[in-house]
Amino acid sequence: MIINDPAKIEQRSMELIEKELTVPISEEYKDIVKRVIHCTADFEYAETMTFSEGAVESALQALQNGCDIVTDTQMAAAGINKKAAAALGCSIHCYMSDADVAQTALKNGSTRAVASMDKAAALDKPTIFAIGNAPTALLRLRELIDAGALKPELIIGVPVGFVNILEAKEAILNADVPFIVAKGRKGGSNVAAAIVNALMYRLTR
Amino acid sequence: MIINDPAKIEQRSMELIEKELTVPISEEYKDIVKRVIHCTADFEYAETMTFSEGAVESALQALQNGCDIVTDTQMAAAGINKKAAAALGCSIHCYMSDADVAQTALKNGSTRAVASMDKAAALDKPTIFAIGNAPTALLRLRELIDAGALKPELIIGVPVGFVNILEAKEAILNADVPFIVAKGRKGGSNVAAAIVNALMYRLTR
Repeated sequence: MIINDPAKIEQRSMELIEKELTVPISEEYKDIVKRVIHCTADFEYAETMTFSEGAVESALQALQNGCDIVTDTQMAAAGINKKAAAALGCSIHCYMSDADVAQTALKNGSTRAVASMDKAAALDKPTIFAIGNAPTALLRLRELIDAGALKPELIIGVPVGFVNILEAKEAILNADVPFIVAKGRKGGSNVAAAIVNALMYRLTR
Repeated sequence: MIINDPAKIEQRSMELIEKELTVPISEEYKDIVKRVIHCTADFEYAETMTFSEGAVESALQALQNGCDIVTDTQMAAAGINKKAAAALGCSIHCYMSDADVAQTALKNGSTRAVASMDKAAALDKPTIFAIGNAPTALLRLRELIDAGALKPELIIGVPVGFVNILEAKEAILNADVPFIVAKGRKGGSNVAAAIVNALMYRLTR
């Protein structure tokens, strides 16, 4: 039987995910982990998602106060629920396609992801970073934090891939910053957006 | 050691994927499957990706002639390489946020994905559908094909999820249409975009 109501499809999906979970997940994080599994159909995230103490509280407070949300891909920005962000007064930024970012990256011999993070570090408001693609973005965020040039409310560190990925995630797991990281190679722009959405839905649904 | 050149990161990633593949994949499809694994770090796709005979040739001819590409999420549209699409003269469409689509869906008691597919069926040019999210989109495409109202050059059928997903993929696997389908629950907007990109890169790289 085909269910046509999107809200019912989501509710039924979450019930199925709950039933098939084989790893115990703290109630504190369960909605977030389940939303990641919902967008990937991959139960491995139940084992790899890692939360720093107080990360969720820090993020919720920032979202409640209308923080900036910075992504490292247009895809992640596109996946973040616009109505929920607007209801919270949050703005979504992705600087990857900006001409000045391309110029800075070329001048510095860095990636555009690094130049994007530098641009984002100049934002005035409290900021959540949602990184689903570029390990160099995470490595740069760590440098900026260590240099005292940045104090994010949350780093979502879920780049996917095969090169630089584990080092980049390790740099955030060891940083003095609120984080949500998917250990290992898996992640992605869809995962980054799902985590932002799960956090926002705590406040808007 | 951190590699900073995006082209080198991609090349090295593809080498690692090639080395870790445990399932033999036809050379005809290998670049496409590897690009999906590249965006998910999930080798299960090596076993689930299914191609109808002639699907790739049909898609390449359409892309070469500047076809339309229709997605069922803004996320998939955002993930398709804009430079490659422009070089081929291809336009990318996602109707999910259109006011007329919302109205039609409300009037018909359907999903917006169904109304989007109906809107796309009116496009003049040859069309590739890249469906990474909505099973109801795939089911509607099958209805339109069976009714003789649509003859796509390719359907990429990779919605992710837990409800309606297997039925929807089966409807495309059994249809008289060129298709690329990821069997099972897995897929996503990122996967749909990766497949479009892999096909375009055959012509533009």
